[in-house]
Amino acid sequence: MIQCKTIDEIREQVTLLKKQGKSVAFVPTMGALHQGHLSLIKLAKAHADEVVVSIYVNPEQFGPNEDFEEYPRQLEDDIQACQEEGCSVVFTPDDEIMYGSDKKYLSIQINELNLHMDGVSRPGFFEGILLVVNKLFNIVDPDFAVFGQKDIQQVQIIRQMVREFNHNVEIVMAPVQRAEDGLALSSRNAYLTKEQRMVAPYLYSALKRVEAKIHDGLVEPEAVLKEEQEELEAKGFKNDYLNVFSFSVMAPVEKLEPGNKYILAGAAYLGKTRLIDNLIIDL
Amino acid sequence: MIQCKTIDEIREQVTLLKKQGKSVAFVPTMGALHQGHLSLIKLAKAHADEVVVSIYVNPEQFGPNEDFEEYPRQLEDDIQACQEEGCSVVFTPDDEIMYGSDKKYLSIQINELNLHMDGVSRPGFFEGILLVVNKLFNIVDPDFAVFGQKDIQQVQIIRQMVREFNHNVEIVMAPVQRAEDGLALSSRNAYLTKEQRMVAPYLYSALKRVEAKIHDGLVEPEAVLKEEQEELEAKGFKNDYLNVFSFSVMAPVEKLEPGNKYILAGAAYLGKTRLIDNLIIDL
Repeated sequence: MIQCKTIDEIREQVTLLKKQGKSVAFVPTMGALHQGHLSLIKLAKAHADEVVVSIYVNPEQFGPNEDFEEYPRQLEDDIQACQEEGCSVVFTPDDEIMYGSDKKYLSIQINELNLHMDGVSRPGFFEGILLVVNKLFNIVDPDFAVFGQKDIQQVQIIRQMVREFNHNVEIVMAPVQRAEDGLALSSRNAYLTKEQRMVAPYLYSALKRVEAKIHDGLVEPEAVLKEEQEELEAKGFKNDYLNVFSFSVMAPVEKLEPGNKYILAGAAYLGKTRLIDNLIIDL
Repeated sequence: MIQCKTIDEIREQVTLLKKQGKSVAFVPTMGALHQGHLSLIKLAKAHADEVVVSIYVNPEQFGPNEDFEEYPRQLEDDIQACQEEGCSVVFTPDDEIMYGSDKKYLSIQINELNLHMDGVSRPGFFEGILLVVNKLFNIVDPDFAVFGQKDIQQVQIIRQMVREFNHNVEIVMAPVQRAEDGLALSSRNAYLTKEQRMVAPYLYSALKRVEAKIHDGLVEPEAVLKEEQEELEAKGFKNDYLNVFSFSVMAPVEKLEPGNKYILAGAAYLGKTRLIDNLIIDL
């Protein structure tokens, strides 16, 4: 496996692979790799001959009061994990490489798609993600890019960018990876105390209960969602949202209709740690 | 020469050329090709093995009161001109191919760089240009892209996009092509009446007079610029701007300093036709 720190280096490596007729799948990460990421890498390998992983904690997607400084960083372990998973290239740029020190004059604005879910609680989050993913797509130029369903709003917004910007890349969405008790794997789970970790899977079980009721014929889930939010609060969560959203635009849906696809998603804090999870409902 | 109408077709052709080890230079145009465009194609050929020209009148860069409908269209002549100039591929998409009919959720915002010059008179103009050029760069994936200095603010903003978005393309700026009497070549010159066409070169001569005075030591050009604007009005022009701007940010400059680069630029109407021209001042 080759480690590239500069844009010229990574471009050279990918060009080399493509000249050999190899297809390239790309897994952009912020490091602190866990089994969730490794499942993305495995899925990437299933789609393409070679896998490129980027490890870069993108400052542009953190708000001023968020955890940019505390975000777990373990570059050496991450590189080793990539190697063990059979990646071909790992791209580990620093801020100077990614953004330089010159003044920036452009930004990517998002309409509607970030008005709900994480877009509300994290202003500028998805704009920061598009900023870096747009750059990374242009730098790495992969055939496929793999993102996890856990961050489903991110996946949908990136898919929209690929459509509107004509990136020549196919987006692959990987299923949520979970601990045995159901908790969605996340680098931020490392922040949880033992007690919080015990309670954490309740977010997923709340989603599963609502999903079961929807499949049993529940059409207007508002009351059920409210009950589950109260249960979560009783367990020690501080709710952000728990709702059903339309699949493409990610706007709240009051009445479910057969033939449609929805996202049943929740976000809640345990202490300072924000957990998110979601299920896709295909009626 | 091959004509491609779809994104898949043009991608296939460029991929084929690159597989043969050929470098590709790209000349995006809105058609109505004149000697100015042909000079861009010639410069493209000097930079790369193969030249791709796109012909597409981009609706997104026209304001509601601008000349989108009247903009000259002569596709067959343009294709023949590209062939005669030795282009390899001409890309002639329609609106459905470029933008589709689905709702758009993203836009590229520009800060500062469009506050002056054409950015003031044409709100949304440069955002519309970035929208289509970003798409075209991702579709065509060229090694070089050639733009004319006549639209220098466009060139500078596209260069900024290439830096911030990490497009893997080198921007080449071609000098302004002029008629024998000095008028900068432009597809919009076709709108001029015989009488207007006689007067039109005066914009360039005004710039040349100011340039000469700056090279003779003029440091604060405001008064001279005002005189020239009055002369232009007397000749029948309606002035938009005539000023010296900083080279990178394109903000008005009151006092010129040695060692700096500036853009001396003017825009003025003859009837409904808007003419622009500029000179780069390197002190």
